[in-house]
Amino acid sequence: MTTATDRPEFHVFDTTLRDGAQREGIRYSVADKLAIAGHLDDLGVDFIEGGWPGALPSDTEFFARAAAELDLKHATLVAFGATRKAGVQVADDPQVRALLDSGASTWCLVAKSDVRHVRRALRTTPGENLAMVADTVSYGVSQGRRVFLDCEHFFDGYRHDPAYATDVVATAFDAGADVVVLCDTNGGMLPSDITEIVTALRADLGETARLGIHCQNDTACAVANTITAVQAGVMHVQGTANGYGERPGNADLFAVVANLECKLGLTVLPDGGLRKMTRVSHAIAEIANLAPDAHQAYVGHAAFAHKAGLHASAIKVDPLMYNHIDPQTVGNDMRILVTEMAGRASVELKATELGLDLTGRPDVAARVTRRVKELEARGWSFEAADASFELLVRDELAAGLTRHFTLDSYRVIVEHRAGGAVVSEATVKVRVAGRRVIATAEGNGPVHALDSALRKALIADFPELDAVRLADYKVRILAGSSGTDAVTRVLVEAADDTREWTTVGVHDNVVEASWHALSEALTYRLSTQPATV
Amino acid sequence: MTTATDRPEFHVFDTTLRDGAQREGIRYSVADKLAIAGHLDDLGVDFIEGGWPGALPSDTEFFARAAAELDLKHATLVAFGATRKAGVQVADDPQVRALLDSGASTWCLVAKSDVRHVRRALRTTPGENLAMVADTVSYGVSQGRRVFLDCEHFFDGYRHDPAYATDVVATAFDAGADVVVLCDTNGGMLPSDITEIVTALRADLGETARLGIHCQNDTACAVANTITAVQAGVMHVQGTANGYGERPGNADLFAVVANLECKLGLTVLPDGGLRKMTRVSHAIAEIANLAPDAHQAYVGHAAFAHKAGLHASAIKVDPLMYNHIDPQTVGNDMRILVTEMAGRASVELKATELGLDLTGRPDVAARVTRRVKELEARGWSFEAADASFELLVRDELAAGLTRHFTLDSYRVIVEHRAGGAVVSEATVKVRVAGRRVIATAEGNGPVHALDSALRKALIADFPELDAVRLADYKVRILAGSSGTDAVTRVLVEAADDTREWTTVGVHDNVVEASWHALSEALTYRLSTQPATV
Repeated sequence: MTTATDRPEFHVFDTTLRDGAQREGIRYSVADKLAIAGHLDDLGVDFIEGGWPGALPSDTEFFARAAAELDLKHATLVAFGATRKAGVQVADDPQVRALLDSGASTWCLVAKSDVRHVRRALRTTPGENLAMVADTVSYGVSQGRRVFLDCEHFFDGYRHDPAYATDVVATAFDAGADVVVLCDTNGGMLPSDITEIVTALRADLGETARLGIHCQNDTACAVANTITAVQAGVMHVQGTANGYGERPGNADLFAVVANLECKLGLTVLPDGGLRKMTRVSHAIAEIANLAPDAHQAYVGHAAFAHKAGLHASAIKVDPLMYNHIDPQTVGNDMRILVTEMAGRASVELKATELGLDLTGRPDVAARVTRRVKELEARGWSFEAADASFELLVRDELAAGLTRHFTLDSYRVIVEHRAGGAVVSEATVKVRVAGRRVIATAEGNGPVHALDSALRKALIADFPELDAVRLADYKVRILAGSSGTDAVTRVLVEAADDTREWTTVGVHDNVVEASWHALSEALTYRLSTQPATV
Repeated sequence: MTTATDRPEFHVFDTTLRDGAQREGIRYSVADKLAIAGHLDDLGVDFIEGGWPGALPSDTEFFARAAAELDLKHATLVAFGATRKAGVQVADDPQVRALLDSGASTWCLVAKSDVRHVRRALRTTPGENLAMVADTVSYGVSQGRRVFLDCEHFFDGYRHDPAYATDVVATAFDAGADVVVLCDTNGGMLPSDITEIVTALRADLGETARLGIHCQNDTACAVANTITAVQAGVMHVQGTANGYGERPGNADLFAVVANLECKLGLTVLPDGGLRKMTRVSHAIAEIANLAPDAHQAYVGHAAFAHKAGLHASAIKVDPLMYNHIDPQTVGNDMRILVTEMAGRASVELKATELGLDLTGRPDVAARVTRRVKELEARGWSFEAADASFELLVRDELAAGLTRHFTLDSYRVIVEHRAGGAVVSEATVKVRVAGRRVIATAEGNGPVHALDSALRKALIADFPELDAVRLADYKVRILAGSSGTDAVTRVLVEAADDTREWTTVGVHDNVVEASWHALSEALTYRLSTQPATV
């Protein structure tokens, strides 16, 4: 058992933005990456690997924007790169220069540690590979960078040639690497393999060397392998949010951290971090535009869901008889199935977070909980739509929410004309301050046209809407559905000069769902900062 | 390392039909259960737990129909039940009678082994619980049944009171149980816990006792825990197809078996069983009406999918450098994901995978690579859209692709009327075989209306399109974008009776992007199986 005072020794290293992006179907925008980094920092990870500035132009842009826009409270941003090319001076390697130019204080360099890969993939000699490791690590250190080294294919390499794999690790430490990370790149290991190899390596290197672990999930053992490595003496764990990654994915950092804290009694997140885990997990899934996995350990919607039956009455006696931990520990809830979603406790918690105190108003909390359950059963999701949730609570509190406008009707037309031009046009008819206002606008697509027409109708009465821009727009077709004949959920992220907020709309028609989310986005702006007119 | 001669000692025990049915969203019909049992037998598991005939009428029906309709080649059907009620004669317990009446040759009985559950959930004494175990096991044996005993909450119980938990196990063996199964019912264990407790128990009981293991995935370690138990001497593994089960699920029996065979060198399935695993996994998912998990270890569609362009040339040299096993071992395939990072090597590999040989056509491969890069830079993504990629390659090969129809124009209208009704209507004007065809249709939303109108226009010329349905529809707003004024990527997954395929469309107008993906989906169907008209 260790305590918070041990924290500086142990690293929680997230690579959602770099290795997680290898998952089939993930394609982050730079804005997505900035938002994900914010959530990870809020959770309290120590390091966020942001990308490979030498390889992808969008990663270079990410580091530039992160420096200007991200205000990380706890985490350090890490740039990923490779050891210098064979036969090249390290200072002349453009990829190493890009690392320097990224401005990141910490580098994570990947190196070959399986001698077969050195020969067949790198096509160089074992000796030159060691020189590449030594040169690149010591160059980074000489430039004032903290350097971690990822040993690719370490475990396979160690099995094939333990002396060479050990040489790579020792070379990196000698050159000044702060951590050397043992990677099960192909993901073929079992916990017993990890124990055996980490133990042997530490016996060789001495126990003061700070080793890290990076596991892939190809044997469905990535989380167990990571935990086992920590038990064998590793002090730095790499993983990704929700286990995103190539093939079956990486070690799920959330399960790793929860196991370390709840099962091994280590403190690896700042105070209160663990309770944010479920929310952060779902928020990142939304940003990645992936459905959260209901069956994910600890944070899944079904992680503490019990089908009624022989256990139901015993659960009432003592929920901990049937749950391995208190779900609140990780910000999750127990559910008895058939009932939908969140309990009153989490509604109250969330409202408090938004500055709306419901503790003296159990009637309001109960009504909000009921409405949330009803709406979520129909496909709404408030996890990523704080502004819609806040409007709902304010509605029930009757505390100042006035609907500043109401819809009479709209019509949107999209035409692909014979000449090939594609045009969209929307007309909205709304009531504002007792008057009927009609406006028509064109747009790049149906939703853009609708947004333009709505703003045109409102701008005279609410000039502050001029500063509101739509920062992001996401569409999800909901599960259990069939093709285009399905329920659609739209998330709209809006921003003005001082803040960002997200609203949600659900309908079987994507345009109607978008209308709802758009009009809530503008209503939120008008409701929460009184108009200055 | 053991060999096939060890087989009779070791049990692969499937509980997809009993414990797997606890998963949120699963509701098997009796016909579903019979079909799943057939697939599991084909794979070669030793035992199939069919249900609890005493508790659920449909399970009683299942055993009756199984006796008449199932022709199991390898597996033995097992009936699940509980030890007799406290204070009741075993022969008078209706639930035990139902077990007898099921006709099953093998019973799996659940018993409490955590003394706290004995007192608080069963509300009986530790002594009576031991008598319940002894009576029910020996009664089954006296009736000629082979009896397994599941010790519920064994690991938590052992931690709390090892002597009592051990007593329950010893009592069952003394009464004639063939296997005693140690269950991590709440799923809170790590591999180190399993090793420690199984090792201690075996030291107590002697090494000839046949112990089993049943793990839940609440720490994301169910597969690792199961493998670890086998390494500690357990000879009977319980799990479910694809890890279905309550909360985060049970140990995924497929990953367990593949690890035992591929990593520990045990032979636990009949000859040829392992190669059926991917097919059986997907078939059971279909029957359970759940989407197969693309990222599942060993059997997922993405389990051997590689995105990284920089690895593609090395993969050509030797695929095993980047796969932990040969995917064919478990009946799966390697896939190369075509992405913007892709070079010509991965385009060629991908084309080969689709049955289009580009090796003699470097000009075509170069043109395809150039077009892929160009299109992906504009937001297209071919990694999930094999059908669009294939159409692109066929276009460049000029090998048989004819555009079966061309668009003149379309118009889509979405109206939210004053009464609140939301309606969508589309009109398309297309050219088919030299004629101009106009069709109008309504739909739930703009894309549904467009799809309906397009099919209406084509169905007379291409009646085979009647069998094509849209299985899924995904929308992504792209990168670097700002709100609704953004590039939209649409993925359409279509299917007919024999296959599924995915197409992509990109445009700043969601309706136009959808049009492209929809018309490619129909073109793909018409191009790759010649029209029969």
